[in-house]
Amino acid sequence: MDDLLFPTVGIAGIGLIGGSLAKDLRTFGLAGRILGWNRTAAHAERAVELGLIDEPRPSLEALIAEADLLVLAMPVDILAERLPRVLDAMRPDQTVIDVGSTKRALAEAVASHPNRPRYVACHPMAGTEKSGPDAALDNLFRNRFTLIIDPARSAPDALARVRTLWARVGAVLAEMSAEAHDQTAALLSHMPHVLAYALARTIKEAERNQALNARFAGGGLASMTRIAHSPITMWEPIFRQNKQPLLQAIDAFAAHLAAFREAIANDDSAAIESLMR
Amino acid sequence: MDDLLFPTVGIAGIGLIGGSLAKDLRTFGLAGRILGWNRTAAHAERAVELGLIDEPRPSLEALIAEADLLVLAMPVDILAERLPRVLDAMRPDQTVIDVGSTKRALAEAVASHPNRPRYVACHPMAGTEKSGPDAALDNLFRNRFTLIIDPARSAPDALARVRTLWARVGAVLAEMSAEAHDQTAALLSHMPHVLAYALARTIKEAERNQALNARFAGGGLASMTRIAHSPITMWEPIFRQNKQPLLQAIDAFAAHLAAFREAIANDDSAAIESLMR
Repeated sequence: MDDLLFPTVGIAGIGLIGGSLAKDLRTFGLAGRILGWNRTAAHAERAVELGLIDEPRPSLEALIAEADLLVLAMPVDILAERLPRVLDAMRPDQTVIDVGSTKRALAEAVASHPNRPRYVACHPMAGTEKSGPDAALDNLFRNRFTLIIDPARSAPDALARVRTLWARVGAVLAEMSAEAHDQTAALLSHMPHVLAYALARTIKEAERNQALNARFAGGGLASMTRIAHSPITMWEPIFRQNKQPLLQAIDAFAAHLAAFREAIANDDSAAIESLMR
Repeated sequence: MDDLLFPTVGIAGIGLIGGSLAKDLRTFGLAGRILGWNRTAAHAERAVELGLIDEPRPSLEALIAEADLLVLAMPVDILAERLPRVLDAMRPDQTVIDVGSTKRALAEAVASHPNRPRYVACHPMAGTEKSGPDAALDNLFRNRFTLIIDPARSAPDALARVRTLWARVGAVLAEMSAEAHDQTAALLSHMPHVLAYALARTIKEAERNQALNARFAGGGLASMTRIAHSPITMWEPIFRQNKQPLLQAIDAFAAHLAAFREAIANDDSAAIESLMR
């Protein structure tokens, strides 16, 4: 098994991202054994049924003990709490990655940890609004960016193998600081999610109060509200952890919306067209 | 040709909607001959090449002279200007429909016209962000609502045949007043388009001023900005014609967004979760 990138991979959180990575690890022959642990034990059992993992483990600690690569694919509030304790248990031959959507809180939580070099912070910019092991997809990461955060804080051997892993599943790699990441993610992902939730809520309220029939909607509304079906337990901690960049992104959007509103209120065709360009 | 619903159909504006309807008219054997006119003459020629129409006509007047059913599929500002003149030329055996996205301005423009009964106001709630004859799709209207506006203002024979036409191309029919329509369309379509344009602009500006790299975006942003690629010449007049309902819809959304922002600013998990539900 010498040619395997990671003989044993442990996936903590076997949902959309963890499960999709498990599929690709197998497809591309990157792991010998895939073990899994999930807070919701039924998800781990389902992941075995689906062939995503070979065997479940009863605790994160049991997973850490066996994993050459540990993948933390859990909500970011739980990540921030668990990552220091995971690093406490890491041996020098082990590597841990996370796939969370915020990075500054994590970076701060482990900045001075002696085992910090075993950790490579990753954010695959891929996903859907679905969750759980049944949401796992083949080739989810192919031709999508995976961002590697603060790479200089990771040990060269861990970084090299993690870069190889993402490249082998088809991801395009880019590197940035935790701060730049959180601003980027706020603008490209977190703020758009807030808009989708707020839009879905606006429509629901109009159905209640104005007898709107939302079944009349065409494809545009479905497209705009798709990501509002994303799981609350995953996204609420993201919004809180990335508070300042997210508030700035919301304010930037709100300013553009206000400009649009004013142009419409003033019947200003030239201004409306210029805002649409 | 007695069993044809409309022996000759004239389509004024052979783009996404006009072209898709032409395809379905042919597929479902609802028209003998399909004639077309387009302000951009190259689009009419392309529509012949694509087999959407049998022959082009050099003017809207020439089209009116021959059409049993005239389909007006043009931007709503041009519709409001042309519809009274189209009705001037209508014979009692002819029917005209529009497929525009606003209805109150049109309703007012022809309210007291003696030939008003020959007009059936329609809004198929279907489309994509693309435009022009090459954007025409088969079965675009199937299982989507087509709204029939102020049906009591149309002659029973015209209304019956237009209802049959939409039913035969697979549309689900619903009826409402012009006022209810414009509020519905503002909430379900026009306001979401404004959000998409404002979001696209926010991202563009961050690319310019904050060195954001928007190529890192996952599928969520693409989903949220897809309809911002819709043609300006079609949407700018919609925003102006549906001004009051649109401003109300924007304000309703802005209030929900502000509530979301406040909950995030206050680290109020319970409020954030309740806004996401």
